[in-house]
Amino acid sequence: MKVKELMDTNFLKVYPDYTVEEVSELMYKKKRYSSPVVDEHDKLVGWINAIDLLILNDEDKKKEIKEFMHDIDRVIILNENDEAREAVIKIVKYKVVSIPVVNNEGKVVGIVRNCDITKTLAKLYDIPVYKLFKTLQEQLRGITWEELMEAAAIVTKQTTGEEITPEEYERRIKDATFGKAIWACGGLEKFFAGLIRIGEVALARKVAKKRGM
Amino acid sequence: MKVKELMDTNFLKVYPDYTVEEVSELMYKKKRYSSPVVDEHDKLVGWINAIDLLILNDEDKKKEIKEFMHDIDRVIILNENDEAREAVIKIVKYKVVSIPVVNNEGKVVGIVRNCDITKTLAKLYDIPVYKLFKTLQEQLRGITWEELMEAAAIVTKQTTGEEITPEEYERRIKDATFGKAIWACGGLEKFFAGLIRIGEVALARKVAKKRGM
Repeated sequence: MKVKELMDTNFLKVYPDYTVEEVSELMYKKKRYSSPVVDEHDKLVGWINAIDLLILNDEDKKKEIKEFMHDIDRVIILNENDEAREAVIKIVKYKVVSIPVVNNEGKVVGIVRNCDITKTLAKLYDIPVYKLFKTLQEQLRGITWEELMEAAAIVTKQTTGEEITPEEYERRIKDATFGKAIWACGGLEKFFAGLIRIGEVALARKVAKKRGM
Repeated sequence: MKVKELMDTNFLKVYPDYTVEEVSELMYKKKRYSSPVVDEHDKLVGWINAIDLLILNDEDKKKEIKEFMHDIDRVIILNENDEAREAVIKIVKYKVVSIPVVNNEGKVVGIVRNCDITKTLAKLYDIPVYKLFKTLQEQLRGITWEELMEAAAIVTKQTTGEEITPEEYERRIKDATFGKAIWACGGLEKFFAGLIRIGEVALARKVAKKRGM
């Protein structure tokens, strides 16, 4: 995933000759805590944070925004072709709310916002864990859903000591998300290990049943 | 995970009788875009966003903050015992930068910030994919690391048509994170399916080898 797939292209931008008052009004109306300052060709020339303008008095507010903007050298920037991961790293490292995105010509083409990153990252956590069991069943050809749930109940008993029926297990995973499951298991690796173990037990029981017949 | 494990307890708070000027100075100095307004018992009585103060003139700045704060009824709040997931949902839904956290008595005990959520969510994506292959190998007792890499190369050839040596495959997963891997596979379920398939192939080859001996 690239930064350009993550950025918001509907963003506030201001020009260096706007007054502080004008910029403040725009930020307030659009509910933006920061804004890129661009020249007539949309090239990034500076960056404004709402809190920097907070401390200005009425006289300062008549002045041009370029007097108070952060210099381009000190602005955190992303290129639209950067990996989305780069945006996450910068948001966490610099504790910023949003980052301007430029193209190869230095033009501002979007803004990456922390809330959009959160939304994207959270999607993985919200995947129903049920889907992963379905994947496991499809992959282990010949194993029925009931056999998989029986194996899951057996593995639960072996690992946690908890007595659970296959039906109860099914109900439990129907309500669970991937995020909840890895938290309950004590981490991604342990969740994985459990799932693989369930697959193994299901296969072993199948083989034993066939031999017994 | 609970909200209390995610929140920042080192936060700015202001009192209703502080002037706008005082609050603005504090926000600027502490680099905070928002702040809870609390009474003498630390109970939440309102909320202040930096952008709301941006449009105030010098005269307004002498007034008390309580005149300009958001009323408690309209503030997004979390309880310290809420699930961390609740914080993620609210940050995404309301597109806010931070949310005050109260205890059961209504006292403000922390602030959940978007950047802290991003940090927490991003950890899952950064797990080395190598670790998951190690988990798979440990789970499939009797399969060596080399056998697992051989199986991985075979599955890669089968699914993508790409010719890759087991050594190349190993190098590739050594550099990859979980986030990168699920992106490359086209989703979590597909990544899972691939991993299970590799385990199956490794086991099948082991059985075939034994029979051949």
